[in-house]
Amino acid sequence: MSATVQVRPSLDDLRTLVDRDLDYLLPASNVYPESIHRAMRHSIFAGGKRLRPILCIESGGLLGAPIGLLARVGAALEMIHTYSLIHDDLPALDNDDLRRGKPTCHVVFGEAIAILAGDALLTLAFRVLSELQGAPPERLVQIIRELASAIGTPEGMIAGQVADLEPRRQPVTPHVLEFIHRAKTGGLLRASVRSGALAANPNGEDLSRLTTYGEKVGLAFQIADDLLDVLGTSAQLGKTAGKDKRQSKATYPSLYGIEESRRIARQLVDEACAALDPFAARGDPLREIARLLIERTA
Amino acid sequence: MSATVQVRPSLDDLRTLVDRDLDYLLPASNVYPESIHRAMRHSIFAGGKRLRPILCIESGGLLGAPIGLLARVGAALEMIHTYSLIHDDLPALDNDDLRRGKPTCHVVFGEAIAILAGDALLTLAFRVLSELQGAPPERLVQIIRELASAIGTPEGMIAGQVADLEPRRQPVTPHVLEFIHRAKTGGLLRASVRSGALAANPNGEDLSRLTTYGEKVGLAFQIADDLLDVLGTSAQLGKTAGKDKRQSKATYPSLYGIEESRRIARQLVDEACAALDPFAARGDPLREIARLLIERTA
Repeated sequence: MSATVQVRPSLDDLRTLVDRDLDYLLPASNVYPESIHRAMRHSIFAGGKRLRPILCIESGGLLGAPIGLLARVGAALEMIHTYSLIHDDLPALDNDDLRRGKPTCHVVFGEAIAILAGDALLTLAFRVLSELQGAPPERLVQIIRELASAIGTPEGMIAGQVADLEPRRQPVTPHVLEFIHRAKTGGLLRASVRSGALAANPNGEDLSRLTTYGEKVGLAFQIADDLLDVLGTSAQLGKTAGKDKRQSKATYPSLYGIEESRRIARQLVDEACAALDPFAARGDPLREIARLLIERTA
Repeated sequence: MSATVQVRPSLDDLRTLVDRDLDYLLPASNVYPESIHRAMRHSIFAGGKRLRPILCIESGGLLGAPIGLLARVGAALEMIHTYSLIHDDLPALDNDDLRRGKPTCHVVFGEAIAILAGDALLTLAFRVLSELQGAPPERLVQIIRELASAIGTPEGMIAGQVADLEPRRQPVTPHVLEFIHRAKTGGLLRASVRSGALAANPNGEDLSRLTTYGEKVGLAFQIADDLLDVLGTSAQLGKTAGKDKRQSKATYPSLYGIEESRRIARQLVDEACAALDPFAARGDPLREIARLLIERTA
Protein backbone atom coordinates (compact mmCIF):
# COMPACT_ATOMS: atom_id res chain seq x y z
CA MET A 1 0.00 0.00 0.00
CA SER A 2 1.28 3.40 -0.90
CA ALA A 3 1.14 6.38 1.44
CA THR A 4 -1.73 8.78 0.69
CA VAL A 5 -1.24 12.50 0.67
CA GLN A 6 -4.15 14.58 1.94
CA VAL A 7 -4.74 17.24 -0.70
CA ARG A 8 -6.89 20.20 0.27
CA PRO A 9 -9.71 20.73 -2.22
CA SER A 10 -9.23 23.90 -4.26
CA LEU A 11 -11.91 26.60 -4.45
CA ASP A 12 -12.80 25.23 -7.90
CA ASP A 13 -13.24 21.75 -6.43
CA LEU A 14 -15.61 23.16 -3.86
CA ARG A 15 -17.59 25.04 -6.51
CA THR A 16 -17.94 21.84 -8.53
CA LEU A 17 -19.15 20.00 -5.45
CA VAL A 18 -21.76 22.64 -4.67
CA ASP A 19 -22.88 22.88 -8.30
CA ARG A 20 -23.39 19.15 -8.43
CA ASP A 21 -25.57 19.35 -5.34
CA LEU A 22 -27.55 22.26 -6.78
CA ASP A 23 -28.11 20.35 -10.00
CA TYR A 24 -29.35 17.37 -8.00
CA LEU A 25 -31.62 19.42 -5.74
CA LEU A 26 -33.33 21.70 -8.28
CA PRO A 27 -36.19 20.18 -10.29
CA ALA A 28 -35.04 19.47 -13.87
CA SER A 29 -35.92 21.94 -16.63
CA ASN A 30 -38.38 19.50 -18.18
CA VAL A 31 -40.40 18.95 -14.99
CA TYR A 32 -43.92 20.45 -15.13
CA PRO A 33 -44.54 23.39 -14.83
CA GLU A 34 -41.35 23.87 -16.83
CA SER A 35 -41.11 27.67 -16.93
CA ILE A 36 -40.37 28.08 -13.23
CA HIS A 37 -37.79 25.33 -13.15
CA ARG A 38 -36.01 26.82 -16.14
CA ALA A 39 -36.10 30.23 -14.40
CA MET A 40 -34.70 28.83 -11.15
CA ARG A 41 -31.88 27.11 -13.03
CA HIS A 42 -31.17 30.16 -15.18
CA SER A 43 -30.38 32.24 -12.11
CA ILE A 44 -28.68 29.54 -10.05
CA PHE A 45 -26.33 28.57 -12.88
CA ALA A 46 -25.52 32.11 -14.06
CA GLY A 47 -21.92 31.89 -12.90
CA GLY A 48 -21.94 32.79 -9.21
CA LYS A 49 -18.73 32.56 -7.20
CA ARG A 50 -20.40 30.30 -4.58
CA LEU A 51 -18.81 32.42 -1.87
CA ARG A 52 -21.45 31.58 0.74
CA PRO A 53 -21.24 27.78 0.27
CA ILE A 54 -17.43 27.99 0.32
CA LEU A 55 -17.47 29.96 3.59
CA CYS A 56 -19.82 27.36 5.05
CA ILE A 57 -17.73 24.40 3.92
CA GLU A 58 -14.42 25.85 5.12
CA SER A 59 -15.85 26.97 8.44
CA GLY A 60 -17.52 23.63 9.17
CA GLY A 61 -14.55 21.72 7.80
CA LEU A 62 -12.25 23.51 10.23
CA LEU A 63 -14.33 22.04 13.08
CA GLY A 64 -14.56 18.58 11.52
CA ALA A 65 -18.07 18.46 10.01
CA PRO A 66 -18.45 16.09 7.04
CA ILE A 67 -18.08 17.80 3.68
CA GLY A 68 -21.19 16.18 2.18
CA LEU A 69 -23.37 17.71 4.88
CA LEU A 70 -21.66 21.10 4.49
CA ALA A 71 -22.07 21.11 0.71
CA ARG A 72 -25.79 20.52 1.16
CA VAL A 73 -26.09 23.43 3.61
CA GLY A 74 -24.02 25.43 1.13
CA ALA A 75 -26.46 24.65 -1.68
CA ALA A 76 -29.30 25.98 0.47
CA LEU A 77 -27.27 29.15 1.15
CA GLU A 78 -26.76 29.66 -2.59
CA MET A 79 -30.50 29.23 -3.21
CA ILE A 80 -31.22 31.92 -0.63
CA HIS A 81 -28.60 34.23 -2.11
CA THR A 82 -29.97 33.71 -5.63
CA TYR A 83 -33.59 34.30 -4.52
CA SER A 84 -32.50 37.63 -3.02
CA LEU A 85 -30.76 38.64 -6.27
CA ILE A 86 -33.77 37.73 -8.43
CA HIS A 87 -36.11 39.84 -6.29
CA ASP A 88 -33.57 42.66 -5.94
CA ASP A 89 -33.22 42.90 -9.73
CA LEU A 90 -36.98 43.27 -10.35
CA PRO A 91 -38.23 46.48 -12.01
CA ALA A 92 -39.99 47.53 -8.79
CA LEU A 93 -36.70 47.27 -6.87
CA ASP A 94 -33.28 47.85 -8.45
CA ASN A 95 -34.53 47.32 -12.02
CA ASP A 96 -31.37 45.58 -13.23
CA ASP A 97 -31.25 43.90 -16.64
CA LEU A 98 -27.83 42.36 -16.25
CA ARG A 99 -26.36 40.16 -13.52
CA ARG A 100 -23.10 38.23 -13.71
CA GLY A 101 -22.97 39.21 -17.38
CA LYS A 102 -26.31 37.55 -18.22
CA PRO A 103 -29.84 38.89 -18.61
CA THR A 104 -31.66 38.80 -15.28
CA CYS A 105 -34.47 36.37 -14.52
CA HIS A 106 -37.38 38.74 -15.19
CA VAL A 107 -35.86 39.85 -18.50
CA VAL A 108 -35.86 36.27 -19.75
CA PHE A 109 -38.95 34.81 -18.06
CA GLY A 110 -41.13 37.80 -17.22
CA GLU A 111 -41.84 39.38 -13.86
CA ALA A 112 -44.45 36.90 -12.65
CA ILE A 113 -42.21 33.87 -13.10
CA ALA A 114 -39.22 35.75 -11.66
CA ILE A 115 -41.13 36.60 -8.48
CA LEU A 116 -42.29 32.99 -8.12
CA ALA A 117 -38.84 31.58 -8.98
CA GLY A 118 -37.38 33.62 -6.12
CA ASP A 119 -40.13 32.38 -3.80
CA ALA A 120 -39.51 28.80 -4.91
CA LEU A 121 -35.75 29.01 -4.28
CA LEU A 122 -36.29 30.39 -0.78
CA THR A 123 -38.80 27.64 -0.07
CA LEU A 124 -36.55 24.93 -1.49
CA ALA A 125 -33.67 26.14 0.68
CA PHE A 126 -35.70 25.49 3.84
CA ARG A 127 -36.86 22.16 2.48
CA VAL A 128 -33.26 21.11 1.82
CA LEU A 129 -32.23 22.13 5.33
CA SER A 130 -35.12 20.14 6.82
CA GLU A 131 -34.05 17.06 4.85
CA LEU A 132 -30.33 17.11 5.71
CA GLN A 133 -28.83 13.70 6.38
CA GLY A 134 -25.94 13.09 8.75
CA ALA A 135 -26.79 15.48 11.57
CA PRO A 136 -29.27 15.11 14.45
CA PRO A 137 -32.58 17.04 14.25
CA GLU A 138 -31.56 19.59 16.90
CA ARG A 139 -28.66 20.67 14.70
CA LEU A 140 -30.97 21.03 11.68
CA VAL A 141 -33.28 23.19 13.76
CA GLN A 142 -30.35 25.36 14.88
CA ILE A 143 -29.22 25.91 11.30
CA ILE A 144 -32.75 26.73 10.09
CA ARG A 145 -33.17 29.19 12.97
CA GLU A 146 -29.81 30.79 12.21
CA LEU A 147 -30.65 31.34 8.55
CA ALA A 148 -34.26 32.39 9.00
CA SER A 149 -33.25 35.16 11.38
CA ALA A 150 -30.30 36.26 9.21
CA ILE A 151 -32.46 36.82 6.14
CA GLY A 152 -35.70 38.25 7.54
CA THR A 153 -36.68 41.34 9.50
CA PRO A 154 -36.17 43.31 11.67
CA GLU A 155 -32.39 42.74 11.57
CA GLY A 156 -31.76 40.49 8.59
CA MET A 157 -31.31 40.73 4.86
CA ILE A 158 -34.82 41.93 3.99
CA ALA A 159 -34.61 44.71 6.57
CA GLY A 160 -31.34 45.80 4.94
CA GLN A 161 -32.95 45.84 1.51
CA VAL A 162 -35.84 47.95 2.77
CA ALA A 163 -33.50 50.43 4.48
CA ASP A 164 -31.50 50.64 1.26
CA LEU A 165 -34.66 51.34 -0.79
CA GLU A 166 -35.93 54.18 1.35
CA PRO A 167 -35.94 57.57 -0.34
CA ARG A 168 -33.26 59.83 1.13
CA ARG A 169 -34.09 63.37 2.02
CA GLN A 170 -30.65 63.85 3.55
CA PRO A 171 -27.21 62.21 3.26
CA VAL A 172 -27.07 58.80 4.88
CA THR A 173 -25.45 58.66 8.32
CA PRO A 174 -22.63 56.21 9.15
CA HIS A 175 -25.08 54.55 11.53
CA VAL A 176 -27.66 53.82 8.80
CA LEU A 177 -24.95 52.80 6.31
CA GLU A 178 -23.63 50.24 8.74
CA PHE A 179 -27.12 48.92 9.42
CA ILE A 180 -27.75 48.49 5.69
CA HIS A 181 -24.45 46.71 5.03
CA ARG A 182 -24.59 44.56 8.13
CA ALA A 183 -28.18 43.49 7.47
CA LYS A 184 -28.32 43.32 3.67
CA THR A 185 -25.10 41.48 2.82
CA GLY A 186 -23.28 40.91 6.08
CA GLY A 187 -26.08 38.92 7.69
CA LEU A 188 -26.09 36.08 5.16
CA LEU A 189 -22.27 35.93 5.01
CA ARG A 190 -22.07 35.73 8.79
CA ALA A 191 -24.79 33.07 8.76
CA SER A 192 -22.90 31.12 6.09
CA VAL A 193 -19.87 30.88 8.37
CA ARG A 194 -22.01 30.13 11.42
CA SER A 195 -24.20 27.50 9.75
CA GLY A 196 -21.09 25.59 8.72
CA ALA A 197 -19.86 25.79 12.30
CA LEU A 198 -23.25 24.75 13.69
CA ALA A 199 -23.19 21.64 11.50
CA ALA A 200 -20.11 20.60 13.51
CA ASN A 201 -21.80 21.04 16.92
CA PRO A 202 -19.18 23.61 18.03
CA ASN A 203 -18.24 24.68 21.53
CA GLY A 204 -19.12 28.26 22.45
CA GLU A 205 -15.59 29.62 22.01
CA ASP A 206 -15.09 28.25 18.52
CA LEU A 207 -18.52 29.47 17.45
CA SER A 208 -17.78 32.91 18.80
CA ARG A 209 -14.41 33.08 16.97
CA LEU A 210 -16.00 32.09 13.70
CA THR A 211 -18.85 34.53 14.28
CA THR A 212 -16.34 37.37 14.63
CA TYR A 213 -14.62 36.21 11.46
CA GLY A 214 -17.97 36.06 9.62
CA GLU A 215 -19.03 39.52 10.75
CA LYS A 216 -15.78 41.21 9.77
CA VAL A 217 -15.57 39.42 6.44
CA GLY A 218 -19.21 40.23 5.71
CA LEU A 219 -18.67 43.94 6.18
CA ALA A 220 -15.33 43.91 4.29
CA PHE A 221 -17.03 42.15 1.38
CA GLN A 222 -19.70 44.82 1.11
CA ILE A 223 -17.14 47.64 1.23
CA ALA A 224 -15.17 45.86 -1.52
CA ASP A 225 -18.38 45.59 -3.54
CA ASP A 226 -19.02 49.32 -3.10
CA LEU A 227 -15.43 50.06 -4.21
CA LEU A 228 -15.75 47.87 -7.29
CA ASP A 229 -18.92 49.71 -8.26
CA VAL A 230 -16.92 52.96 -8.31
CA LEU A 231 -13.65 51.60 -9.72
CA GLY A 232 -14.76 48.84 -12.08
CA THR A 233 -16.22 48.76 -15.55
CA SER A 234 -19.44 46.99 -16.41
CA ALA A 235 -17.47 44.33 -18.28
CA GLN A 236 -15.39 43.46 -15.19
CA LEU A 237 -18.41 43.49 -12.94
CA GLY A 238 -20.86 41.65 -15.18
CA LYS A 239 -23.42 44.17 -14.02
CA THR A 240 -24.05 47.83 -14.55
CA ALA A 241 -21.17 49.80 -12.97
CA GLY A 242 -21.60 53.18 -11.30
CA LYS A 243 -25.21 52.29 -10.56
CA ASP A 244 -24.99 52.98 -6.84
CA LYS A 245 -24.07 56.59 -7.46
CA ARG A 246 -26.78 57.14 -10.07
CA GLN A 247 -29.33 55.63 -7.69
CA SER A 248 -27.74 57.61 -4.82
CA LYS A 249 -27.36 54.44 -2.81
CA ALA A 250 -25.57 54.59 0.50
CA THR A 251 -21.97 53.37 0.04
CA TYR A 252 -18.66 53.47 1.91
CA PRO A 253 -16.77 55.38 -0.82
CA SER A 254 -19.45 58.08 -0.93
CA LEU A 255 -19.30 58.52 2.82
CA TYR A 256 -15.58 57.95 3.55
CA GLY A 257 -13.81 58.30 0.19
CA ILE A 258 -11.97 55.58 -1.72
CA GLU A 259 -8.71 55.46 0.24
CA GLU A 260 -10.32 55.39 3.66
CA SER A 261 -12.78 52.72 2.48
CA ARG A 262 -9.84 50.58 1.33
CA ARG A 263 -8.17 51.06 4.71
CA ILE A 264 -11.32 50.05 6.60
CA ALA A 265 -11.73 46.94 4.43
CA ARG A 266 -8.08 45.91 4.96
CA GLN A 267 -8.39 46.42 8.68
CA LEU A 268 -11.58 44.33 8.85
CA VAL A 269 -9.84 41.51 7.00
CA ASP A 270 -6.88 41.68 9.41
CA GLU A 271 -9.26 41.50 12.35
CA ALA A 272 -11.16 38.61 10.75
CA CYS A 273 -7.91 36.67 10.34
CA ALA A 274 -6.77 37.50 13.87
CA ALA A 275 -9.97 35.98 15.26
CA LEU A 276 -8.78 32.67 13.78
CA ASP A 277 -5.40 32.72 15.60
CA PRO A 278 -6.34 29.93 18.03
CA PHE A 279 -7.00 27.61 15.08
CA ALA A 280 -3.40 28.08 13.85
CA ALA A 281 -2.86 26.60 10.37
CA ARG A 282 -6.33 25.05 10.28
CA GLY A 283 -7.65 28.59 9.79
CA ASP A 284 -5.63 29.14 6.59
CA PRO A 285 -8.42 28.40 4.09
CA LEU A 286 -10.67 30.99 5.72
CA ARG A 287 -7.80 33.50 5.91
CA GLU A 288 -7.14 33.07 2.19
CA ILE A 289 -10.79 33.65 1.33
CA ALA A 290 -10.82 36.84 3.41
CA ARG A 291 -7.75 38.17 1.57
CA LEU A 292 -9.16 37.24 -1.84
CA LEU A 293 -12.28 39.26 -1.14
CA ILE A 294 -10.47 42.58 -1.05
CA GLU A 295 -7.69 41.79 -3.51
CA ARG A 296 -9.57 43.12 -6.54
CA THR A 297 -10.04 46.51 -4.87
CA ALA A 298 -6.35 47.20 -4.04
CA MET B 1 -64.86 22.97 44.98
CA SER B 2 -67.34 23.13 42.14
CA ALA B 3 -67.34 20.79 39.17
CA THR B 4 -65.74 22.26 36.05
CA VAL B 5 -67.34 21.89 32.67
CA GLN B 6 -65.00 21.51 29.70
CA VAL B 7 -66.21 24.03 27.12
CA ARG B 8 -64.94 23.63 23.57
CA PRO B 9 -63.43 26.86 22.26
CA SER B 10 -65.55 28.43 19.51
CA LEU B 11 -64.12 29.30 16.10
CA ASP B 12 -64.02 32.92 17.26
CA ASP B 13 -62.02 31.91 20.35
CA LEU B 14 -59.51 30.15 18.10
CA ARG B 15 -59.26 33.16 15.81
CA THR B 16 -58.56 35.39 18.82
CA LEU B 17 -55.89 32.99 20.01
CA VAL B 18 -54.15 32.93 16.62
CA ASP B 19 -54.43 36.70 16.20
CA ARG B 20 -52.81 37.23 19.58
CA ASP B 21 -49.92 35.01 18.53
CA LEU B 22 -49.57 36.82 15.20
CA ASP B 23 -49.51 40.17 16.98
CA TYR B 24 -46.79 38.86 19.28
CA LEU B 25 -44.70 37.33 16.50
CA LEU B 26 -44.76 40.14 13.92
CA PRO B 27 -42.38 43.07 14.50
CA ALA B 28 -44.33 46.11 15.73
CA SER B 29 -45.26 48.85 13.23
CA ASN B 30 -42.79 51.25 14.81
CA VAL B 31 -39.77 48.94 14.52
CA TYR B 32 -37.17 50.12 11.98
CA PRO B 33 -37.48 49.83 8.98
CA GLU B 34 -41.12 50.68 9.66
CA SER B 35 -42.59 50.44 6.16
CA ILE B 36 -42.18 46.69 5.83
CA HIS B 37 -43.54 45.95 9.27
CA ARG B 38 -46.58 48.11 8.57
CA ALA B 39 -47.05 46.28 5.26
CA MET B 40 -46.78 42.82 6.88
CA ARG B 41 -49.34 43.81 9.52
CA HIS B 42 -51.65 45.43 6.98
CA SER B 43 -52.04 42.13 5.11
CA ILE B 44 -51.99 39.80 8.12
CA PHE B 45 -54.69 41.78 9.93
CA ALA B 46 -56.93 42.40 6.91
CA GLY B 47 -59.69 40.15 8.24
CA GLY B 48 -58.76 36.61 7.18
CA LYS B 49 -60.90 33.70 8.36
CA ARG B 50 -57.82 31.93 9.83
CA LEU B 51 -59.04 28.71 8.21
CA ARG B 52 -55.57 27.15 8.03
CA PRO B 53 -54.69 27.78 11.69
CA ILE B 54 -58.12 26.48 12.74
CA LEU B 55 -57.67 23.28 10.72
CA CYS B 56 -54.24 22.83 12.32
CA ILE B 57 -55.53 23.41 15.86
CA GLU B 58 -58.55 21.11 15.51
CA SER B 59 -56.55 18.38 13.82
CA GLY B 60 -53.75 18.42 16.39
CA GLY B 61 -56.23 18.89 19.24
CA LEU B 62 -58.06 15.73 18.18
CA LEU B 63 -54.80 13.82 18.76
CA GLY B 64 -53.98 15.58 22.02
CA ALA B 65 -51.30 18.14 21.05
CA PRO B 66 -51.17 21.21 23.33
CA ILE B 67 -53.17 24.16 22.00
CA GLY B 68 -50.34 26.68 22.58
CA LEU B 69 -48.03 24.74 20.29
CA LEU B 70 -50.77 24.35 17.67
CA ALA B 71 -51.65 28.05 17.71
CA ARG B 72 -48.00 28.86 17.02
CA VAL B 73 -47.88 26.46 14.06
CA GLY B 74 -51.17 28.01 12.97
CA ALA B 75 -49.67 31.49 13.05
CA ALA B 76 -46.87 30.30 10.76
CA LEU B 77 -49.48 28.81 8.40
CA GLU B 78 -51.31 32.12 8.27
CA MET B 79 -48.05 33.96 7.49
CA ILE B 80 -47.44 31.58 4.59
CA HIS B 81 -51.00 31.98 3.32
CA THR B 82 -50.75 35.78 3.54
CA TYR B 83 -47.38 35.87 1.76
CA SER B 84 -48.93 33.90 -1.11
CA LEU B 85 -51.85 36.33 -1.34
CA ILE B 86 -49.58 39.39 -1.36
CA HIS B 87 -47.47 38.01 -4.20
CA ASP B 88 -50.55 36.68 -6.08
CA ASP B 89 -52.16 40.12 -6.00
CA LEU B 90 -49.15 41.90 -7.54
CA PRO B 91 -49.61 43.67 -10.89
CA ALA B 92 -47.34 41.12 -12.61
CA LEU B 93 -49.54 38.26 -11.38
CA ASP B 94 -53.30 38.63 -10.77
CA ASN B 95 -53.19 42.42 -10.49
CA ASP B 96 -55.81 42.65 -7.77
CA ASP B 97 -56.51 45.93 -5.96
CA LEU B 98 -58.91 44.55 -3.42
CA ARG B 99 -58.61 41.64 -0.99
CA ARG B 100 -60.94 40.88 1.90
CA GLY B 101 -62.58 44.25 1.17
CA LYS B 102 -59.36 46.23 1.70
CA PRO B 103 -56.78 47.66 -0.68
CA THR B 104 -54.04 45.11 -1.36
CA CYS B 105 -50.51 45.46 -0.01
CA HIS B 106 -48.91 46.89 -3.16
CA VAL B 107 -51.71 49.44 -3.56
CA VAL B 108 -50.95 50.86 -0.13
CA PHE B 109 -47.19 50.35 0.17
CA GLY B 110 -45.94 50.08 -3.42
CA GLU B 111 -44.72 47.02 -5.29
CA ALA B 112 -41.20 46.89 -3.85
CA ILE B 113 -42.37 46.78 -0.24
CA ALA B 114 -45.17 44.34 -1.11
CA ILE B 115 -42.70 41.90 -2.68
CA LEU B 116 -40.40 42.16 0.33
CA ALA B 117 -43.27 41.95 2.83
CA GLY B 118 -44.29 38.65 1.23
CA ASP B 119 -40.71 37.43 1.41
CA ALA B 120 -40.46 38.50 5.04
CA LEU B 121 -43.67 36.68 6.04
CA LEU B 122 -42.49 33.46 4.39
CA THR B 123 -39.15 33.77 6.13
CA LEU B 124 -40.73 34.56 9.50
CA ALA B 125 -42.97 31.50 9.19
CA PHE B 126 -39.94 29.21 8.99
CA ARG B 127 -38.28 31.08 11.83
CA VAL B 128 -41.34 30.61 14.02
CA LEU B 129 -41.45 26.89 13.22
CA SER B 130 -37.76 26.54 14.07
CA GLU B 131 -38.34 28.26 17.43
CA LEU B 132 -41.38 26.23 18.54
CA GLN B 133 -41.39 25.31 22.23
CA GLY B 134 -42.99 22.18 23.63
CA ALA B 135 -42.09 19.65 20.96
CA PRO B 136 -38.84 17.76 20.35
CA PRO B 137 -36.58 18.88 17.47
CA GLU B 138 -37.46 15.90 15.26
CA ARG B 139 -41.09 16.99 15.30
CA LEU B 140 -40.15 20.55 14.34
CA VAL B 141 -38.11 19.20 11.45
CA GLN B 142 -41.06 17.06 10.30
CA ILE B 143 -43.41 20.05 10.34
CA ILE B 144 -40.93 22.27 8.47
CA ARG B 145 -40.41 19.54 5.86
CA GLU B 146 -44.16 19.06 5.48
CA LEU B 147 -44.78 22.75 4.87
CA ALA B 148 -41.76 23.43 2.67
CA SER B 149 -42.78 20.68 0.26
CA ALA B 150 -46.46 21.71 0.30
CA ILE B 151 -45.72 25.28 -0.77
CA GLY B 152 -42.84 24.90 -3.24
CA THR B 153 -42.32 23.18 -6.57
CA PRO B 154 -42.73 20.83 -8.38
CA GLU B 155 -45.93 19.75 -6.61
CA GLY B 156 -46.74 22.49 -4.13
CA MET B 157 -48.43 25.86 -4.02
CA ILE B 158 -45.98 27.74 -6.26
CA ALA B 159 -46.23 25.06 -8.96
CA GLY B 160 -50.01 25.47 -8.84
CA GLN B 161 -49.70 29.23 -9.22
CA VAL B 162 -47.41 28.84 -12.22
CA ALA B 163 -49.73 26.31 -13.89
CA ASP B 164 -52.63 28.70 -13.28
CA LEU B 165 -50.71 31.60 -14.87
CA GLU B 166 -49.81 29.80 -18.08
CA PRO B 167 -51.46 31.18 -21.19
CA ARG B 168 -54.09 28.78 -22.53
CA ARG B 169 -54.21 27.97 -26.19
CA GLN B 170 -56.93 25.39 -25.60
CA PRO B 171 -59.56 24.67 -22.90
CA VAL B 172 -58.02 23.30 -19.73
CA THR B 173 -58.33 19.55 -19.22
CA PRO B 174 -59.77 18.00 -16.02
CA HIS B 175 -56.27 16.67 -15.37
CA VAL B 176 -54.63 20.13 -15.40
CA LEU B 177 -57.51 21.66 -13.44
CA GLU B 178 -57.07 19.09 -10.69
CA PHE B 179 -53.30 19.69 -10.61
CA ILE B 180 -53.83 23.43 -10.23
CA HIS B 181 -56.41 23.10 -7.46
CA ARG B 182 -54.56 20.36 -5.63
CA ALA B 183 -51.25 22.20 -5.74
CA LYS B 184 -52.30 25.84 -5.45
CA THR B 185 -54.84 25.73 -2.63
CA GLY B 186 -55.22 22.11 -1.65
CA GLY B 187 -51.58 21.61 -0.74
CA LEU B 188 -51.46 24.18 2.05
CA LEU B 189 -54.86 23.12 3.44
CA ARG B 190 -53.75 19.50 3.51
CA ALA B 191 -50.48 20.56 5.14
CA SER B 192 -52.40 22.61 7.73
CA VAL B 193 -54.27 19.49 8.83
CA ARG B 194 -51.15 17.34 8.69
CA SER B 195 -48.88 19.78 10.53
CA GLY B 196 -51.36 19.88 13.40
CA ALA B 197 -51.36 16.09 13.45
CA LEU B 198 -47.55 15.93 13.26
CA ALA B 199 -47.32 18.18 16.31
CA ALA B 200 -49.05 15.34 18.21
CA ASN B 201 -46.61 12.65 17.07
CA PRO B 202 -49.38 10.60 15.45
CA ASN B 203 -49.46 6.92 14.58
CA GLY B 204 -49.52 6.09 10.88
CA GLU B 205 -53.25 5.30 10.76
CA ASP B 206 -54.37 8.52 12.40
CA LEU B 207 -52.07 10.57 10.17
CA SER B 208 -53.42 8.83 7.09
CA ARG B 209 -57.06 9.48 8.12
CA LEU B 210 -56.38 13.14 8.71
CA THR B 211 -54.44 13.35 5.44
CA THR B 212 -57.48 12.02 3.56
CA TYR B 213 -59.67 14.55 5.37
CA GLY B 214 -57.23 17.36 4.50
CA GLU B 215 -57.05 16.41 0.82
CA LYS B 216 -60.81 16.18 0.34
CA VAL B 217 -61.47 19.38 2.26
CA GLY B 218 -58.75 21.18 0.35
CA LEU B 219 -60.30 20.34 -3.01
CA ALA B 220 -63.86 21.05 -1.79
CA PHE B 221 -62.72 24.45 -0.54
CA GLN B 222 -61.31 25.39 -3.93
CA ILE B 223 -64.45 24.27 -5.76
CA ALA B 224 -66.52 26.34 -3.31
CA ASP B 225 -64.23 29.30 -4.00
CA ASP B 226 -64.74 28.86 -7.76
CA LEU B 227 -68.51 28.70 -7.23
CA LEU B 228 -68.53 31.85 -5.12
CA ASP B 229 -66.63 33.66 -7.84
CA VAL B 230 -69.47 32.85 -10.26
CA LEU B 231 -72.39 33.21 -7.83
CA GLY B 232 -71.26 35.95 -5.49
CA THR B 233 -71.06 39.71 -5.68
CA SER B 234 -67.89 41.67 -5.04
CA ALA B 235 -69.38 42.97 -1.79
CA GLN B 236 -69.92 39.44 -0.46
CA LEU B 237 -66.52 38.30 -1.59
CA GLY B 238 -64.48 41.31 -0.54
CA LYS B 239 -62.67 40.90 -3.82
CA THR B 240 -63.50 41.38 -7.47
CA ALA B 241 -66.19 38.83 -8.46
CA GLY B 242 -66.34 37.18 -11.87
CA LYS B 243 -62.61 37.68 -12.24
CA ASP B 244 -61.81 34.06 -12.99
CA LYS B 245 -64.00 34.11 -16.08
CA ARG B 246 -62.62 37.41 -17.36
CA GLN B 247 -59.09 36.09 -16.88
CA SER B 248 -60.20 32.73 -18.38
CA LYS B 249 -58.86 30.92 -15.33
CA ALA B 250 -59.45 27.22 -15.04
CA THR B 251 -62.40 26.59 -12.69
CA TYR B 252 -64.76 23.74 -11.78
CA PRO B 253 -67.95 25.58 -12.83
CA SER B 254 -66.50 26.38 -16.26
CA LEU B 255 -65.55 22.74 -16.80
CA TYR B 256 -68.42 20.90 -15.07
CA GLY B 257 -71.20 23.48 -14.68
CA ILE B 258 -72.59 24.87 -11.41
CA GLU B 259 -74.82 22.00 -10.33
CA GLU B 260 -72.25 19.28 -10.96
CA SER B 261 -69.59 21.35 -9.17
CA ARG B 262 -71.88 21.64 -6.15
CA ARG B 263 -72.43 17.89 -6.21
CA ILE B 264 -68.68 17.18 -6.38
CA ALA B 265 -68.00 19.55 -3.48
CA ARG B 266 -70.72 17.96 -1.34
CA GLN B 267 -69.41 14.51 -2.10
CA LEU B 268 -65.85 15.50 -1.17
CA VAL B 269 -67.08 16.88 2.14
CA ASP B 270 -68.99 13.64 2.83
CA GLU B 271 -65.86 11.63 2.08
CA ALA B 272 -63.75 13.93 4.27
CA CYS B 273 -66.14 13.41 7.18
CA ALA B 274 -66.26 9.66 6.59
CA ALA B 275 -62.48 9.47 6.92
CA LEU B 276 -62.95 10.69 10.50
CA ASP B 277 -65.38 7.88 11.47
CA PRO B 278 -62.86 6.05 13.68
CA PHE B 279 -62.47 9.20 15.81
CA ALA B 280 -66.22 9.18 16.60
CA ALA B 281 -67.35 12.37 18.36
CA ARG B 282 -63.79 13.68 18.66
CA GLY B 283 -63.94 14.34 14.91
CA ASP B 284 -66.95 16.67 15.21
CA PRO B 285 -65.03 19.99 15.13
CA LEU B 286 -63.34 19.01 11.86
CA ARG B 287 -66.65 17.74 10.43
CA GLU B 288 -68.30 21.06 11.22
CA ILE B 289 -65.52 23.03 9.52
CA ALA B 290 -65.85 20.86 6.40
CA ARG B 291 -69.61 21.52 6.22
CA LEU B 292 -69.17 25.26 6.83
CA LEU B 293 -66.83 25.47 3.86
CA ILE B 294 -69.48 24.59 1.30
CA GLU B 295 -72.49 26.05 3.09
CA ARG B 296 -72.22 29.41 1.33
CA THR B 297 -72.39 27.78 -2.09
CA ALA B 298 -75.60 25.74 -1.56
